[in-house]
Amino acid sequence: MKKLLIASTALVMVAGAAAAEVKLSGDARMGAVYDSEDWNFSSRARVQFTLSGTTDSGLEFGAKFRTSDIRNAEDPRNGNRGTVFLSGAFGKITMGDIASASEELFGDLADVGYLGDDQGTAKFGGTNAIPYLTLDNETTSGLMYTYSAGAFSVAAAMTDGHGYGSVAAGTFEADTQSYSVAAAYTFGNYTVGLGHEILDRDGAGLDMSQTELAGMAKFGNTDVKGYYAIGGDENPVDDAIGLSVASAFGATTVKGYVQKVDFVAAGVDSVTWYGLGADYDLGGGAILAAGIQDDDVDGSDPVANMGVKFKF
Amino acid sequence: MKKLLIASTALVMVAGAAAAEVKLSGDARMGAVYDSEDWNFSSRARVQFTLSGTTDSGLEFGAKFRTSDIRNAEDPRNGNRGTVFLSGAFGKITMGDIASASEELFGDLADVGYLGDDQGTAKFGGTNAIPYLTLDNETTSGLMYTYSAGAFSVAAAMTDGHGYGSVAAGTFEADTQSYSVAAAYTFGNYTVGLGHEILDRDGAGLDMSQTELAGMAKFGNTDVKGYYAIGGDENPVDDAIGLSVASAFGATTVKGYVQKVDFVAAGVDSVTWYGLGADYDLGGGAILAAGIQDDDVDGSDPVANMGVKFKF
Amino acid sequence: MKKLLIASTALVMVAGAAAAEVKLSGDARMGAVYDSEDWNFSSRARVQFTLSGTTDSGLEFGAKFRTSDIRNAEDPRNGNRGTVFLSGAFGKITMGDIASASEELFGDLADVGYLGDDQGTAKFGGTNAIPYLTLDNETTSGLMYTYSAGAFSVAAAMTDGHGYGSVAAGTFEADTQSYSVAAAYTFGNYTVGLGHEILDRDGAGLDMSQTELAGMAKFGNTDVKGYYAIGGDENPVDDAIGLSVASAFGATTVKGYVQKVDFVAAGVDSVTWYGLGADYDLGGGAILAAGIQDDDVDGSDPVANMGVKFKF
Repeated sequence: MKKLLIASTALVMVAGAAAAEVKLSGDARMGAVYDSEDWNFSSRARVQFTLSGTTDSGLEFGAKFRTSDIRNAEDPRNGNRGTVFLSGAFGKITMGDIASASEELFGDLADVGYLGDDQGTAKFGGTNAIPYLTLDNETTSGLMYTYSAGAFSVAAAMTDGHGYGSVAAGTFEADTQSYSVAAAYTFGNYTVGLGHEILDRDGAGLDMSQTELAGMAKFGNTDVKGYYAIGGDENPVDDAIGLSVASAFGATTVKGYVQKVDFVAAGVDSVTWYGLGADYDLGGGAILAAGIQDDDVDGSDPVANMGVKFKF
Repeated sequence: MKKLLIASTALVMVAGAAAAEVKLSGDARMGAVYDSEDWNFSSRARVQFTLSGTTDSGLEFGAKFRTSDIRNAEDPRNGNRGTVFLSGAFGKITMGDIASASEELFGDLADVGYLGDDQGTAKFGGTNAIPYLTLDNETTSGLMYTYSAGAFSVAAAMTDGHGYGSVAAGTFEADTQSYSVAAAYTFGNYTVGLGHEILDRDGAGLDMSQTELAGMAKFGNTDVKGYYAIGGDENPVDDAIGLSVASAFGATTVKGYVQKVDFVAAGVDSVTWYGLGADYDLGGGAILAAGIQDDDVDGSDPVANMGVKFKF
Repeated sequence: MKKLLIASTALVMVAGAAAAEVKLSGDARMGAVYDSEDWNFSSRARVQFTLSGTTDSGLEFGAKFRTSDIRNAEDPRNGNRGTVFLSGAFGKITMGDIASASEELFGDLADVGYLGDDQGTAKFGGTNAIPYLTLDNETTSGLMYTYSAGAFSVAAAMTDGHGYGSVAAGTFEADTQSYSVAAAYTFGNYTVGLGHEILDRDGAGLDMSQTELAGMAKFGNTDVKGYYAIGGDENPVDDAIGLSVASAFGATTVKGYVQKVDFVAAGVDSVTWYGLGADYDLGGGAILAAGIQDDDVDGSDPVANMGVKFKF
């Protein structure tokens, strides 16, 4: 009456040919959040759709989006906030809700708590997310190119700047174009990367840029990630620096990050914020996680959250 | 850990280990509705996502939500209107769009028609739904605890009252906290239950409560359910009483309910409403259903609906 | 090409009984759009849910909708923009977001580009979509009856005109009722059809109608479709005519359409618009597609799009 869904094992029976398919996975979380004043409950469940196929010549294509990406699209030319890709020997082209080239290769610092970067510090809103200049929030009109050859990975991303439909949704500024390029080199347990982003806000007469240097290392059971970002003259951010460490002790992983941003604008000098947390792996896709975060803005008190997160 | 789709049959093949998975089921309905003035068409289709997994120590976890629960979430800490749970020997903890403890254990009266409680009487809007004081409508920030031992079942539910994000959606009143506890005891074909609900509306300076006594019995092919609810001084409802009967004759089930609410407020004395309906099981998950409902408010005429409902 | 979840092979394992089930399929596209001024990126991914079952007496029932049909329903009696059906020897009844009877049997002209009718000409907004009078846009309250016997197919569609909930969404005009009937006859590679539509706008005091004559033919690898529509006195459209041709040369299909509408209103005389495109089948569900469209409205420049579309 219910169900069906086929196992990948069963899929093997379907000839040897690559068949286009739709797969489901999901995540959920439940717990409590302290916003520096009250404890609140917070839970969420999502399903991810992963679509994949292969052309006769061996190009791979696909798409993915989550139930949380489903929106009342205003323009039929724009879909949900997911991504669509086509890949082959030439590399991979991804369109839709992409990240900047820098974020694509370097990611963010280690997150803390069961909410990850969905909870920010009380006054500044800081999280483990690195303050990339472009595409750090949702878009529907981006184009990303990525390519890996041996130890080298490169990425380039851009938006068309015409804000198709997303202007109405208030999520994109018309006549704003963004470009970014990044490269990373991995040798053994070490990866170093360099990225550059440009945000051309014609409407506001601003031409902003930011360069990021990032490094990741693995020492035994400890992962370390750090970055330094320096902005151009017209940026709000002068420079930013951050570091995170995650160490596994059996089923327990202790994590922490600290970031500091210097602003260009007079009056606001700089903000430092940090997070500390621990994850305990319950097995089977369940993780118990707790974290605390704070910033040094006047009058800011710590925020925290504790709960369970699940993968399906 | 990811993926899935997997048939239960195929699942047998996947070792003995419990794998986290996402399953699909669905429901749909189509028919016509008489709103006391016109007949209208009405149809609906939904898919439910059921996520489930097991930790290494044997705790079960999961989540479920329907496509109709998918919303444009305003606060990333709140997801859709589904629920997430974790259960073990200690009982079951559920978070998200929960019901009150009383509704969790007693449910509502027998519903009529293919629309169930989605159609109410013309003037009062009454349905088979029992007028619980708390959590009778959607929430995203509730916490429920349930536990069963032999013939006993207990439940406790609360909301944090801070209305995370749902204030914006107008679905939750800030500074309103709700609490409820309920217990049920089953002996043979009989179940009796008692529940108590508190709605603390700090904002409005109101402290409301309601106590429910419920009984369910099975006589051969007939199910009977009744309740009596008595409210506190600051409630809108003074007391309420209701009864439903559902009798199966082969593939046909005849159902009816009647409810009466006495109000505290002067002017409005009491309202009585009822519903009568019949279901015919077509097999394979399809049911033909018709129902009529009415209340005794001045000038109220009967409403009715007739259609088919499907389970997938 | 479609598929999955399930391999029919795996389904065989599930006894012989017809089981109600939920299947997933999907589509996606990515490319660039020229709106006569700028080139923009545009991508989209969707998943379709197909629900199906069979009653004990052999009636088939089901429903389907896409993730892009999921809306914040304002009235619980209305679901998403999908459809629900029940079929048997008597024919097939479909409710929900149906098309007009004419569109159900004749469809639209051959589409061009990877965006199909999601891109219209610059000034007039014309596409390969035939200008049917009724139900050409979304509805949630329609009823469709279809029946086929040998070479004959008939369809009848209507809406109840009360605009349940959809008034609030601005997608349906209250007190507007639509009716349509259509028939088609197929002999060998030829199909001819006749349809009639009525749009009764009580609110606006208008009683509109339109009659369509349609023909489809297959000559070797070439598909030709044409129609002529003539409107009533109170219509905005006096008459309309259109033709499309699609010819396959190996993996390449060249397509084109042209349409002309004469308006009743003085001042605007008539508009002619056309589209030209080519599809290249990459296999495995992927198609490379490009198209250009234009109309003869003063100052209108061509629009175009080029990209890849995928089926999963």
